[in-house]
Amino acid sequence: MDLKIFDRMESEVRGYVRSFPVIFKQARGSILIDEDDKQYIDFFSGAGTLNYGHNNPVFKKKVIEYLDTDGLIHGLDMATTAKKHFLETVDRVLLKPRDWKYTLQFTGPTGTNAVEAALKLARQIKGRQNIISFTHGFHGVSGGSLAVTANSKFRNAAGVSLANTTFMPFDGYMGPDINTMAYLERMLDDPSSGLDHPAAVIVETVQGEGGVNVATWRWLKELERLCKKHDMLLIVDDIQVGCGRTGNFFSFESAGIQPDIITLSKSLSGFGLPMSLVLMKPELDIWKPGAHSGTFRGNNLAFVTASQALETYWSDGAFSEEIQRKEGLVRDWLENLVHSYPMAGLSVRGRGLIQGLITSADDDVAAQVAKKAFGYGLVIETSGAHDEVLKVLPALTIEDDLLSRGLEIIERSVAEVLAEKGVSAHVLKFGGRAR
Amino acid sequence: MDLKIFDRMESEVRGYVRSFPVIFKQARGSILIDEDDKQYIDFFSGAGTLNYGHNNPVFKKKVIEYLDTDGLIHGLDMATTAKKHFLETVDRVLLKPRDWKYTLQFTGPTGTNAVEAALKLARQIKGRQNIISFTHGFHGVSGGSLAVTANSKFRNAAGVSLANTTFMPFDGYMGPDINTMAYLERMLDDPSSGLDHPAAVIVETVQGEGGVNVATWRWLKELERLCKKHDMLLIVDDIQVGCGRTGNFFSFESAGIQPDIITLSKSLSGFGLPMSLVLMKPELDIWKPGAHSGTFRGNNLAFVTASQALETYWSDGAFSEEIQRKEGLVRDWLENLVHSYPMAGLSVRGRGLIQGLITSADDDVAAQVAKKAFGYGLVIETSGAHDEVLKVLPALTIEDDLLSRGLEIIERSVAEVLAEKGVSAHVLKFGGRAR
Amino acid sequence: MDLKIFDRMESEVRGYVRSFPVIFKQARGSILIDEDDKQYIDFFSGAGTLNYGHNNPVFKKKVIEYLDTDGLIHGLDMATTAKKHFLETVDRVLLKPRDWKYTLQFTGPTGTNAVEAALKLARQIKGRQNIISFTHGFHGVSGGSLAVTANSKFRNAAGVSLANTTFMPFDGYMGPDINTMAYLERMLDDPSSGLDHPAAVIVETVQGEGGVNVATWRWLKELERLCKKHDMLLIVDDIQVGCGRTGNFFSFESAGIQPDIITLSKSLSGFGLPMSLVLMKPELDIWKPGAHSGTFRGNNLAFVTASQALETYWSDGAFSEEIQRKEGLVRDWLENLVHSYPMAGLSVRGRGLIQGLITSADDDVAAQVAKKAFGYGLVIETSGAHDEVLKVLPALTIEDDLLSRGLEIIERSVAEVLAEKGVSAHVLKFGGRAR
Amino acid sequence: MDLKIFDRMESEVRGYVRSFPVIFKQARGSILIDEDDKQYIDFFSGAGTLNYGHNNPVFKKKVIEYLDTDGLIHGLDMATTAKKHFLETVDRVLLKPRDWKYTLQFTGPTGTNAVEAALKLARQIKGRQNIISFTHGFHGVSGGSLAVTANSKFRNAAGVSLANTTFMPFDGYMGPDINTMAYLERMLDDPSSGLDHPAAVIVETVQGEGGVNVATWRWLKELERLCKKHDMLLIVDDIQVGCGRTGNFFSFESAGIQPDIITLSKSLSGFGLPMSLVLMKPELDIWKPGAHSGTFRGNNLAFVTASQALETYWSDGAFSEEIQRKEGLVRDWLENLVHSYPMAGLSVRGRGLIQGLITSADDDVAAQVAKKAFGYGLVIETSGAHDEVLKVLPALTIEDDLLSRGLEIIERSVAEVLAEKGVSAHVLKFGGRAR
Repeated sequence: MDLKIFDRMESEVRGYVRSFPVIFKQARGSILIDEDDKQYIDFFSGAGTLNYGHNNPVFKKKVIEYLDTDGLIHGLDMATTAKKHFLETVDRVLLKPRDWKYTLQFTGPTGTNAVEAALKLARQIKGRQNIISFTHGFHGVSGGSLAVTANSKFRNAAGVSLANTTFMPFDGYMGPDINTMAYLERMLDDPSSGLDHPAAVIVETVQGEGGVNVATWRWLKELERLCKKHDMLLIVDDIQVGCGRTGNFFSFESAGIQPDIITLSKSLSGFGLPMSLVLMKPELDIWKPGAHSGTFRGNNLAFVTASQALETYWSDGAFSEEIQRKEGLVRDWLENLVHSYPMAGLSVRGRGLIQGLITSADDDVAAQVAKKAFGYGLVIETSGAHDEVLKVLPALTIEDDLLSRGLEIIERSVAEVLAEKGVSAHVLKFGGRAR
Repeated sequence: MDLKIFDRMESEVRGYVRSFPVIFKQARGSILIDEDDKQYIDFFSGAGTLNYGHNNPVFKKKVIEYLDTDGLIHGLDMATTAKKHFLETVDRVLLKPRDWKYTLQFTGPTGTNAVEAALKLARQIKGRQNIISFTHGFHGVSGGSLAVTANSKFRNAAGVSLANTTFMPFDGYMGPDINTMAYLERMLDDPSSGLDHPAAVIVETVQGEGGVNVATWRWLKELERLCKKHDMLLIVDDIQVGCGRTGNFFSFESAGIQPDIITLSKSLSGFGLPMSLVLMKPELDIWKPGAHSGTFRGNNLAFVTASQALETYWSDGAFSEEIQRKEGLVRDWLENLVHSYPMAGLSVRGRGLIQGLITSADDDVAAQVAKKAFGYGLVIETSGAHDEVLKVLPALTIEDDLLSRGLEIIERSVAEVLAEKGVSAHVLKFGGRAR
Repeated sequence: MDLKIFDRMESEVRGYVRSFPVIFKQARGSILIDEDDKQYIDFFSGAGTLNYGHNNPVFKKKVIEYLDTDGLIHGLDMATTAKKHFLETVDRVLLKPRDWKYTLQFTGPTGTNAVEAALKLARQIKGRQNIISFTHGFHGVSGGSLAVTANSKFRNAAGVSLANTTFMPFDGYMGPDINTMAYLERMLDDPSSGLDHPAAVIVETVQGEGGVNVATWRWLKELERLCKKHDMLLIVDDIQVGCGRTGNFFSFESAGIQPDIITLSKSLSGFGLPMSLVLMKPELDIWKPGAHSGTFRGNNLAFVTASQALETYWSDGAFSEEIQRKEGLVRDWLENLVHSYPMAGLSVRGRGLIQGLITSADDDVAAQVAKKAFGYGLVIETSGAHDEVLKVLPALTIEDDLLSRGLEIIERSVAEVLAEKGVSAHVLKFGGRAR
Repeated sequence: MDLKIFDRMESEVRGYVRSFPVIFKQARGSILIDEDDKQYIDFFSGAGTLNYGHNNPVFKKKVIEYLDTDGLIHGLDMATTAKKHFLETVDRVLLKPRDWKYTLQFTGPTGTNAVEAALKLARQIKGRQNIISFTHGFHGVSGGSLAVTANSKFRNAAGVSLANTTFMPFDGYMGPDINTMAYLERMLDDPSSGLDHPAAVIVETVQGEGGVNVATWRWLKELERLCKKHDMLLIVDDIQVGCGRTGNFFSFESAGIQPDIITLSKSLSGFGLPMSLVLMKPELDIWKPGAHSGTFRGNNLAFVTASQALETYWSDGAFSEEIQRKEGLVRDWLENLVHSYPMAGLSVRGRGLIQGLITSADDDVAAQVAKKAFGYGLVIETSGAHDEVLKVLPALTIEDDLLSRGLEIIERSVAEVLAEKGVSAHVLKFGGRAR
């Protein structure tokens, strides 16, 4: 495979192509195929965009049918048959069964556009400018979203000062013994803390890019309480871990909280097509007509597959149970791995099918494991401030067999990387473990 | 048709559905069809996204072929066969024939994401924060782009102060007798003007949203000179009027200028699929790997159709000539219309197949014409600060017959609206004009 | 005189000591005396702070009397006898005779603190952030004031981006043929100009630092009209040219405008003591108690001399007439000088006893003249974006004899500087002119 | 006394006059006298401006002598005899004995102007915009300083968003068990914390306005270490607690730290005259000539008294010892008071002669005590986020007798206020305690 044209023509900003230096030509389910016909198991899922796998045949059939009828491809925010169907499906599959009421806003079809809309709305409603975001939070890289994104790599690229955001420590940020919510409450209660009264809080229940940091239900519940106490809106950014990634369609359902605004994107269309959505409590819908626009906010092919995704996977609870079952498989495997190397400083955290194998921030074990795994035919990425977290993010629909094969590759890669560093396993025979 | 579900479930922010209150189910070329099988001629083209018409059969065929082979749909910024083909096609069709060198950055697939990247890059390069934008300029509504967008409807929705931008008067802003470039030069030359040294200027050669305001070649040339004189980058935002809209692929080609950075989107994919691109002079590519990201920056279906669009329409000069021929048709028609109502204060401006029929800002003639035209089966929108411009934006591929029928509807609608206002035509029989 | 300790211990930021490199030990009226007993005529007046001359004996007597009684020196914003007397005097001498109603706010005793308070108040009242300021405007260098100050020397020192200000062209900025107010009106009227609706306009009627630029009465009147039309407050910054500098106590009185907010400082105390004041229309006083503070806002010695200054000079119209008479002397002299060198590109502008001799921005004639004049015993400074304006700013109380001697030094210095550049006078004998 | 003219003419922003509603006519040492000849002991000292008492006769004599010789009153930043003398005195009394090297910048004569200059300088040097400030920090209310001031009363008055500052918890902010410096270090070490790399940290060693919060020497030492580790400048704002307030001339001397920049004002002139100063390490002096200006930065009367203050009080260590002796008196008294009311939730904190009697934030004991004390002839103020701290701030030169009388008034007032609330003393006879 000749990647020279990418080197020659594409900006230095390109990233993943450096980690996975092959040219992919085909993909089906959890398998990627490169131009040399080499196959790879996908534990990356388009950074959370391909929860239902590549080229899911149910969706593909719908796309081709739609194309055959010359349905609208591009519709701005005009009414189309495909959009109507999507609205009906959201109502029937997501809202009614939960007895929720949310109004839908279609934004430009990238996650960051949805976040931009959510932040604007919150600021308009409250007439205040400050937003609370959290350490390691990631919400996108356009101007408004970037201000609430913590990673300095992205922030420094702005070339301007990013204002109107206050970062607070996420759950667990100061270690298990310090309740970070107490700090936030102290700052909010104190009129001389320097914290300008925020319009809203934006939070991910599991921080994907930030290193698979998991907020406890209690912490989220406390956050909701603080929002009410201090008249702030609660925005849950469910772009990466919504759409079933953590077990339920929405990642926060088990917390028993009710966000004021929810952002969705990534796996929303189900097929990898760009699509984004903002859900807001109806009483918050103070938008003026046309005050937030976007050329591609009516990506109708995405509406077609998104409707089908809801229909196929979320009409009942079976898929949730399936995800939770697989979570068990992955979790057990990773915890066994951790226990096999008691001296290696490894740990596991995650929820549902986003699980992180945490390595030490001081070395580059995670990066080396990912690299080695790619050589063995597994596509997997790292995350975290120091890329110290190996992020296990398979399709929710992955076959058990492929899941096991992927985990085995991780296991083998970890073993080799640690061996090179002189760390040996506690248990000699991995195969001996019951799984 | 029952639009109730849109009213009930969709945010008040929705816009175009209010102007065109029907549900569209199909579209082919320049024809839209609603759920009652009523047909409409499209003079709107998805706000410039559908330069090659709806469901262009050449592109659709390619899409289906690609789907059949299970090509990657979603690829982040990994290398794919579809992306490689796009790079090769850009090189062969756009760059080599012009002897241009530009490096490509794929951003999140909406125009505003490309603008965000362009502004970040310029600020990083120059180490300065201010950007010059122009009155009536539109560059998107995410945080960074919104700051350089002039329209207060969008700006006020931000809920925060938008900084680091200075607006300067666009060509003709103070009337034909005042050279707005002289003002900009005075401000730049004067160390006590209050104008902080800008990193870049961002400009549209024809302001689509702003009211079809056309910058003369001379003015653009002067702007380029000032950029060089004052060490500022020149960014041409060709999102709405690039991709052939004004006659050449890039809207600025006849000006003889060479922008440092170019943004493209809208009609880039050709098929209405979300896609965006930043072109930068190679020496400006100081991006660090991964410093600007975006989940959907590898929308591979769009790469497939974008390659085909370049191949089909831009491999030689024939399509340019065709556009210019049609420009003549539209322009003549509109100018005749203007001359028919000498008392109505109408005028025409535009370039290529973006032409505006300018009405008085004091009344709502343009809006009424658009509304009436929709009743007669023509989809057309208004633009300008007071929606005083009827924006004629047909597909570049529109058949002459449909073009004429659309123009006739405009003519009839203008006649009726003006008649209701008591303005009669100077020439009684329109049909008598040679066209 | 040994200036070494200044070089060694004082920051590079020091400025005037470089232009006037002597150590001053005494000053009386319009005469400065250095440590070598050399005398200088003062045409600089502490940049407008010493309108009544140095060590004015009437004020000095009051200061010593006050010290003798152990009156409070420092009073924060507590009530003191000296402050009460000042309030009474303002009421009797300034407000009642004009039938004006203004509420007084004492801020930290520097001009910039008054401007900060004025801007805060305007923004609070209107709930908007943007402020219109003008090219070449100077309002101070603390954060808030600096944002509305045009000079890049000061702006660049901030180290941060200065937001929430839009600079508009001052009267005459684009030459005599272009009405800059029309541009401002166009921008305000147009909802797509990019100009965020301002809370207020801040303006100097004569720009002292900016180069003795004089706003016509008509332009100011128009500005007031625009403020009303667009619901903006009108702030006149009378720090440099108030307190009688242009003939009346307030510089704008002849314009027939009534500012919403007025800032005063510099010559307000009369004796060179730090003091500042904000006047606001009573209905604008929405301040909350203690919301704007400042340790030295009760500089009681300054209250003592400020009361006396109003009493002595402004109880009737005699002093105004005297200033206008002297304006005539200065103006005639300067205009004769200009006419004597028709090839030198000189001109005069000013109002009252702030008059500028304008030289070409391309060379350094003004700076050379000032330097030479200092050698001849005249303290005078330059201003303007390129220091191209020789700023004639004598005490309003200067004796005619000293005024003439100062003007003669200017004349001689100009003659010599121009002669060195090969420009000769049109009229050979200056002495021949009637003055 | 008739305060009506203050009510009628002065803005609602006035503050202290509401707490002390009398008109003061005279003041000597620690005694204030109102227009009804009632005397008050001053435990307020002009909010730290009158460390040497009112109308200190040594300074007054110098002022009158200076006036008699017609020394310059106002000198901008020209060299004067009085300024030269001040520079020499600083060198001899402050710098040489400590073997320190600092360059001096004279700014506009209010504390906030010095802070503005310090922040600008730090940002210029580091080329970064963010500044770390602390909860409860107070640094002034002009734009730049306000951004680093924590109190929402002041911040909300800005009418604009205050950017480029990150507030961190001051020493003890989260209680005695949580090391706030660990949080700051975690945020700085973590590239994904959201904390933009700061140019500098600005800190008060004892937060006067913030509630007499005392940073331990260890915490300050750690802060210095972090500044070095993360390439940030350390700015100590010694405006309120410098000039001897805590025992040494500089408040941080016992911490063994060496700030990069120090700001001084308030008691610097010694006589209550406006004056401010920035000290910077010589290698940091990158100022360009004239880049930070200010009309009153040469307040020569203040130079005269400031030189004398250094001469009289700081030529040897005697005054320091005297302050420490008085600290013991105050501290003992207050601690006895606290112990007398074990049920009242009182406590003491402070350093040198700034001592706070801390009451519960939930009621208004401190405010009631201050009010009652005023009735008994004691001027004392409260501070803290909820005005819950009675701030004991006598002149450093106060006679023991007056000090005791003042403390007795506090004791009596506390007793009465607590009695009204039903809290009685543990020890019946106050007089019985040895003092």
